[in-house]
Amino acid sequence: MEKTTIKEVTRIELKNPVLVEGLPGLGMVGRIATRYLAKQLKAKKLANLYSPHFPYYVLVNKKGSVRLLRGEFYFWKNEAGENDLILFTGDSQAQTIEGQYDVASCILDFAERNNVKVVVTIGGYRKEVEETPKVVAASPSSELLNKALQAKAIASPVGNPIVGTAGLLLGMARFRKIDAVCLLGETRGYLPDPRAAKSVLEVLQRMLRVKVDLSGLDEEIEKSKGIVERMKEIEERREKYAQKMRRGEEERITYIS
Amino acid sequence: MEKTTIKEVTRIELKNPVLVEGLPGLGMVGRIATRYLAKQLKAKKLANLYSPHFPYYVLVNKKGSVRLLRGEFYFWKNEAGENDLILFTGDSQAQTIEGQYDVASCILDFAERNNVKVVVTIGGYRKEVEETPKVVAASPSSELLNKALQAKAIASPVGNPIVGTAGLLLGMARFRKIDAVCLLGETRGYLPDPRAAKSVLEVLQRMLRVKVDLSGLDEEIEKSKGIVERMKEIEERREKYAQKMRRGEEERITYIS
Amino acid sequence: MEKTTIKEVTRIELKNPVLVEGLPGLGMVGRIATRYLAKQLKAKKLANLYSPHFPYYVLVNKKGSVRLLRGEFYFWKNEAGENDLILFTGDSQAQTIEGQYDVASCILDFAERNNVKVVVTIGGYRKEVEETPKVVAASPSSELLNKALQAKAIASPVGNPIVGTAGLLLGMARFRKIDAVCLLGETRGYLPDPRAAKSVLEVLQRMLRVKVDLSGLDEEIEKSKGIVERMKEIEERREKYAQKMRRGEEERITYIS
Amino acid sequence: MEKTTIKEVTRIELKNPVLVEGLPGLGMVGRIATRYLAKQLKAKKLANLYSPHFPYYVLVNKKGSVRLLRGEFYFWKNEAGENDLILFTGDSQAQTIEGQYDVASCILDFAERNNVKVVVTIGGYRKEVEETPKVVAASPSSELLNKALQAKAIASPVGNPIVGTAGLLLGMARFRKIDAVCLLGETRGYLPDPRAAKSVLEVLQRMLRVKVDLSGLDEEIEKSKGIVERMKEIEERREKYAQKMRRGEEERITYIS
Repeated sequence: MEKTTIKEVTRIELKNPVLVEGLPGLGMVGRIATRYLAKQLKAKKLANLYSPHFPYYVLVNKKGSVRLLRGEFYFWKNEAGENDLILFTGDSQAQTIEGQYDVASCILDFAERNNVKVVVTIGGYRKEVEETPKVVAASPSSELLNKALQAKAIASPVGNPIVGTAGLLLGMARFRKIDAVCLLGETRGYLPDPRAAKSVLEVLQRMLRVKVDLSGLDEEIEKSKGIVERMKEIEERREKYAQKMRRGEEERITYIS
Repeated sequence: MEKTTIKEVTRIELKNPVLVEGLPGLGMVGRIATRYLAKQLKAKKLANLYSPHFPYYVLVNKKGSVRLLRGEFYFWKNEAGENDLILFTGDSQAQTIEGQYDVASCILDFAERNNVKVVVTIGGYRKEVEETPKVVAASPSSELLNKALQAKAIASPVGNPIVGTAGLLLGMARFRKIDAVCLLGETRGYLPDPRAAKSVLEVLQRMLRVKVDLSGLDEEIEKSKGIVERMKEIEERREKYAQKMRRGEEERITYIS
Repeated sequence: MEKTTIKEVTRIELKNPVLVEGLPGLGMVGRIATRYLAKQLKAKKLANLYSPHFPYYVLVNKKGSVRLLRGEFYFWKNEAGENDLILFTGDSQAQTIEGQYDVASCILDFAERNNVKVVVTIGGYRKEVEETPKVVAASPSSELLNKALQAKAIASPVGNPIVGTAGLLLGMARFRKIDAVCLLGETRGYLPDPRAAKSVLEVLQRMLRVKVDLSGLDEEIEKSKGIVERMKEIEERREKYAQKMRRGEEERITYIS
Repeated sequence: MEKTTIKEVTRIELKNPVLVEGLPGLGMVGRIATRYLAKQLKAKKLANLYSPHFPYYVLVNKKGSVRLLRGEFYFWKNEAGENDLILFTGDSQAQTIEGQYDVASCILDFAERNNVKVVVTIGGYRKEVEETPKVVAASPSSELLNKALQAKAIASPVGNPIVGTAGLLLGMARFRKIDAVCLLGETRGYLPDPRAAKSVLEVLQRMLRVKVDLSGLDEEIEKSKGIVERMKEIEERREKYAQKMRRGEEERITYIS
């Protein structure tokens, strides 16, 4: 395999499809959100993406089976609404700089072939979140950005870098005349963060006018809370210790100079 | 040399050949097993594989001669049984991510050209082995996996990553309509581990119905035992020391917080 | 995006154009100088350069918009003088070795297509500058080098490496029969250094016989002075501390030997 | 520049040319030897090799001029003997794994085009040399190896890795039906080592039946001796110190266990 390759599983005519992308990244927000969406909508497999830029191992599945790391395209026929959905998630981001651009490019090739006119990418936004995480939006299209803000996202601060596939799709979509918006759920980012994923899905639902039951995420949120609390304590303790050390060092430097 | 290249040494018609692969890796299990097999079967050289993804040095051989790092294909005509064998081993794994995919792809090109329908890859499985090492099996084909389990392998736990060529061949074989199974010998992995290689070969013999005298490995196992014992002691001592250190640190942190 | 790509924004006939290049690097001298020049001359966008060798993130702009990292070509019609200008600046240097050569090559392709016969590259030259920074010049063309020296640059010491795009353009221009010269402003290099950029622009003005008001840089220089002073103090303190440590170590070594 | 490129400076018919290669590496032995040879023989420039795998900077020359890093081919017409010489040296080795194979391949392309049938590569062999450094030889051709041994080289130990261009040329030459031998001068390797270069040239002279005055190297050897002595002292002191530390650590570990 010399090149990133997309293998179609089925061919289907889709109605004004919107592509929603979420890969592993900060707080796993994109992946949790997109996978949950695919599961709830009972989306069906459309295609797999394989790439020599993914890590060079295979994973053992449930039944002792084995597969390459891959990206997965799912589709969902939206009988009631205007836009069918294509969902893209996967095991990993590309591992090299050039690989990142290549994989994003292949995803957009596939989007173009399927007449996608709008791409929504999902990721995490690092923040010490106390209450319900907010959703930060950015888009090269002011129209799409407004739609996100109306759906209760907040505008991204200037200079914020959006790293990886979620970012590159956003930047590269315009060369294909595809509109794109990024929704980033606020997250501490240490651990898989279903709470941030839920916030993103709430905004996404409003934007796409698709109704999905999000209560299934609440259980995962409960589970993760305990872990997060424990992590926070350890971190605070470390911070206090580090402060003490820094204070000591400053004194030493002051003394020397 | 811009690309991975296979240079054929001889051309020969093979009967339903099975490809057995074992490169250097964890505990050198794959390489030890495959080389021993080639030696015992008096397998003959079929082809060499050269790649710009191998490390950039050459090795001096016995007679002061020199050669590039390479992979080697051997063949063995199985007069009594159903399947001839192609054995693949070599000096090194590919050194870059993209190189790993490229080399695995070239090996499968060669397998396809030789009408290989089944690939067996060999590697190590990290574990604190006390008794005889078990052999962990995984396969995208439930039929092949069952064959391995009947040959006294155990099924791989879920989520186990199989790294390098042994893994990628497994994942990429299906695109060529080739069946593949991976046999991983349990090993501490610090040192070349002939004991793990022997366990794998015992399973492999049963699977392929090929009888090979494995007593030649026992001598190497004896030699390696002394080293392993010594390594274990050093490690235990280190662990005790590290525990003591950690305890001290915990006390300090508790005191500070 | 598999390759570095230049997307033209407009097409225009330019009169003996000179290309001035300044990307982020030591002290940000090249980027500050080139951007300031573009702003003062009210230069217009000519083209954008995108590359899979740039970092794999996108940046959020003022209005919440988003774009890929890129290089930018601007042009300026020099009504009074002999040479129109093309200015090239951007967000980043290429991130891999091969990428550096590739991006420099694409810039020269574009220069050639626009009949550029002279390239001026701008960068920083690491030095503990006390007074007004000098400008160090180097060129494969003795004629251009003399022009720079007449414009009050000083000749580069032998063996000085010029790293990145500013250097490679210089080295590769000759294969296109393009003359090139590099102007490096002396800078401590820790921080964006508008003072070094100003020195370079003073030399450049004389060389190109283009008059630009540089007073806009003075404000930035004022702002940066405070920061530089503070940095210097910290550094001196560190140096004293390090000396003390080294002295201690030497004593120890002397004692031991 | 996307690919390694050779630019011919002149075309000339050469008589059974032998290619001698020496790039920077351990103790700079290859580069010192090859450059000295080119200078003594008043060899003339034949071609330059440029590569995107070399480091991405340019160097300032004597007259303030600038050039890309490059490899250089020189030729020498051997009026008295059987073989003209092509000498290859340069500023740098390729910086990536794939680049190393690519550059070696291009050098052999050039050798083939010039009807080279024998390649001699030069490098360093790490050893704590006390007396006159020996020259270690290795070759895929037993005939050439014997020639080297007759010229007072010694055979390389088994398993010795020959790293970089000197090694890869040796390994890759056979695919072009070119004979190749490597001469490695023993060197501590810390510093440019003209003494090791001289030893290699003495062997090379005998092999090629070319007489070169090597006294020019003696001055450099004198200069380097002082530095080497000082380095040795520092190192011995460090070693004593490290031993003391290790002894302390062993005691501690013994105590704990």
